[in-house]
Amino acid sequence: MVNLNIISIFTFWNNNPLIAAAAETEAEADNSSLIFAGVLLSLVIIYFASKLGGEICARINLPPVLGELVGGVVIGISATHLLVFPEAGITAEDSLIMKLLQSTSSLTPESAQSVFSAQSEVISLLSELGVVILLFEIGLESDLKELIRVGPQAAIVAVVGVVAPFAAGTAGLVYIFGVAPVPSIFAGAALTATSIGITAKVLAELGQLTSKEGQIIIGAAVLDDVLGIIVLAVVASLVKTGTIEITNIIYLIISAGVFLIGTILVGRVISPWLIALVNEMKTRGQLLLTSLVFAFIVAYIANVIQLEAILGSFAVGLVLAETEKRKELEEQILPVADIFVPIFFVCVGAKTDLSVLNPAIPSNREGLLIASFLIVVAILGKIITGFTVVGKSELNKLAIGVGMIPRGEVGLVFAGVGSASGALSESTEAAIIMMVILTTFIAPPFLRLVFTESDQSEEVPTSESKEIPSSK
Amino acid sequence: MVNLNIISIFTFWNNNPLIAAAAETEAEADNSSLIFAGVLLSLVIIYFASKLGGEICARINLPPVLGELVGGVVIGISATHLLVFPEAGITAEDSLIMKLLQSTSSLTPESAQSVFSAQSEVISLLSELGVVILLFEIGLESDLKELIRVGPQAAIVAVVGVVAPFAAGTAGLVYIFGVAPVPSIFAGAALTATSIGITAKVLAELGQLTSKEGQIIIGAAVLDDVLGIIVLAVVASLVKTGTIEITNIIYLIISAGVFLIGTILVGRVISPWLIALVNEMKTRGQLLLTSLVFAFIVAYIANVIQLEAILGSFAVGLVLAETEKRKELEEQILPVADIFVPIFFVCVGAKTDLSVLNPAIPSNREGLLIASFLIVVAILGKIITGFTVVGKSELNKLAIGVGMIPRGEVGLVFAGVGSASGALSESTEAAIIMMVILTTFIAPPFLRLVFTESDQSEEVPTSESKEIPSSK
Repeated sequence: MVNLNIISIFTFWNNNPLIAAAAETEAEADNSSLIFAGVLLSLVIIYFASKLGGEICARINLPPVLGELVGGVVIGISATHLLVFPEAGITAEDSLIMKLLQSTSSLTPESAQSVFSAQSEVISLLSELGVVILLFEIGLESDLKELIRVGPQAAIVAVVGVVAPFAAGTAGLVYIFGVAPVPSIFAGAALTATSIGITAKVLAELGQLTSKEGQIIIGAAVLDDVLGIIVLAVVASLVKTGTIEITNIIYLIISAGVFLIGTILVGRVISPWLIALVNEMKTRGQLLLTSLVFAFIVAYIANVIQLEAILGSFAVGLVLAETEKRKELEEQILPVADIFVPIFFVCVGAKTDLSVLNPAIPSNREGLLIASFLIVVAILGKIITGFTVVGKSELNKLAIGVGMIPRGEVGLVFAGVGSASGALSESTEAAIIMMVILTTFIAPPFLRLVFTESDQSEEVPTSESKEIPSSK
Repeated sequence: MVNLNIISIFTFWNNNPLIAAAAETEAEADNSSLIFAGVLLSLVIIYFASKLGGEICARINLPPVLGELVGGVVIGISATHLLVFPEAGITAEDSLIMKLLQSTSSLTPESAQSVFSAQSEVISLLSELGVVILLFEIGLESDLKELIRVGPQAAIVAVVGVVAPFAAGTAGLVYIFGVAPVPSIFAGAALTATSIGITAKVLAELGQLTSKEGQIIIGAAVLDDVLGIIVLAVVASLVKTGTIEITNIIYLIISAGVFLIGTILVGRVISPWLIALVNEMKTRGQLLLTSLVFAFIVAYIANVIQLEAILGSFAVGLVLAETEKRKELEEQILPVADIFVPIFFVCVGAKTDLSVLNPAIPSNREGLLIASFLIVVAILGKIITGFTVVGKSELNKLAIGVGMIPRGEVGLVFAGVGSASGALSESTEAAIIMMVILTTFIAPPFLRLVFTESDQSEEVPTSESKEIPSSK
């Protein structure tokens, strides 16, 4: 009976004038299905690279986030060309994912370019959402009260750790290397970051999280996160508005400060009301979606007033960390961050063209020199911060400085934002990534060394004394 | 000192040949920042509509998913035009989000169209990821063993509940209304669905989840989910390949069956190995990302062999539901589904043009007639299924049939896929949505009525006796 029906439908079909119209929309629907297939394939490859890299790093005692970045480099423009983005001179022909799609589906070479650019657009947007969600999570894990409590010592360490590398890095690039001012400022800004996730994780592994040095490092790293985001907002806005004027800088610093403090003050008034609303709601995901709507609105406002969206999501995270729902929200944002954040790190790696650092090509040597210079400034600029803590002679001042060295995810955020804004030349971007990779690599063993030397007679460090939630 | 630096940088800037290049890439970066702002704003509006609609429905004892759909209709093309998509005759001018973006940012009318289409592409892709994740979650909540255990009764109910409305719906549309075969088949297919989430929730609220009738309904609804997805895969593939041939249909039914059974068999071999791998992994999100990579790979394969991606993610969900990690995975997918799934439902609502059902316009009357016909078939086609259960006179056969009526999210999946494929005319799509809305609206009070009438002397139904996880 069903068969009979279908045969008569078949007859019907052949006589139907709608077939032509259906065939037209078919091509369109086919493209959208191919874009979706491309996105699925990209996500599979991104997650595979992030987990493979992360797991290898976790096994050799390095931060997993480093592995995600290196995984991105391996699948990206520098190596296997699996995941490439339509930038200067890159077409669908260069993307292995597109080739895979062409060989397994009905993708024609004519529509390959539009599918390629649409798919890349979606992956880029997902990666931008990833960094917004990462900063929301970092804000949520930070402690506004601790930020205030850690007091002058951590503040001095943080401020010196931002100003010294920024000034030395930017001035060095402009005066010694003759780099243009905007990329110099970006590179200098990338030098200011401290990765709270990596530092806290390493301190926990050394059993030094609750030591005096550990507390100062954590406090300064938290402050550094905030300062770094303000610096990033200022720098990214400079690139956006296109001019460098003192009044503009002052406006931006003030607006970033007012925005951050304003969001926190207004947020603290709104958040009890928001939590009461969430408690009244009966449908699934009420806390997570309400919080994300709050974060996205503030991120949108930050974007609109020429600051960075991440500043908004960080501020909302800080505010919500003060509410009774912090723990519940942290648990719920975890899987969401697990899905979005790796896309960001892998994309940063994939977009980085490390070939510009190949020393065999003479024109690359400048980039390598810049990278070496940045690395030296990155290490020295943070080590000196420990010696700004005066009056406490028993402190391991070297350890404090070393604890501030790893740039980690925050440094990569700078490279990623700089790359997205188009302000960084390839060699400067690659040099920044090199600096981030190296400082992140060097910090864990170096930190272990300086702590062990001073502690040998005092106490035996208990490893894994307290597991701290890593921001990756 | 910093100020001096910046002044000399300013001088530098004016003499720098890189400024022209920077200005060019600036426009591009600006566009990408505007697309991101547009996506943020769209997400805020989507989440707001979904929560407002969901909460209102939850309060008047209706399934929240219905509210998300209606919320989508309210912000979409039918009403306020906040969220519209670039289809026939729709430009950036029609989108209130784009107007909001233009009034708050530097978006120029010239770049508005490209920002509009890029932003819409991203939202559409997120909504497609939403339905893939929803079906993964439904698979994870289903029980493969229960599917086998419920035996012949549930199977008969399920098969009759698929065949009867499909045959009656498709034949009626073709022969009575002269609708083209492809949309008729799509409408017929949409009639086959049963919403396991809504049905289970309502049964739980009536305290009937563990009654004989309740168990048959749940079993049949689970089977119906699988049958419905096979029907959807077959129908969607028919649209894709463009021809209706018996051999093609047989090929598709066999390939859908082989794919589903093959994925489950192969998946059951692979999954212990996969779980062992996850147990070995040390980095965050190992279970969730490994599972999603598995689901995305199978979804990609389904897509490539002309089936639907959702069939793949559902099969992987079923397989992973059998592992020891089911509970953990269910907890982790929950927040992810909370974020992605509402985008799907709201977009389906937003894309539905209900104005074609306005009875004041004479040309719309056919669509209304179609909707009325579909609603009658939808109700009668499921009610008869209860009476196919023979030999158990004490069963409330009417209740079983009524329990199968709500189409819910599965029916909307049909409408969404049909709409995305371009196979449905506006009036047929609107008629399907009307049918889904009405059957979903009608089922909870109707079910309460038939259960209360028969149970008045037997037992007092305990409301909320067991809370079942709703799939939304």
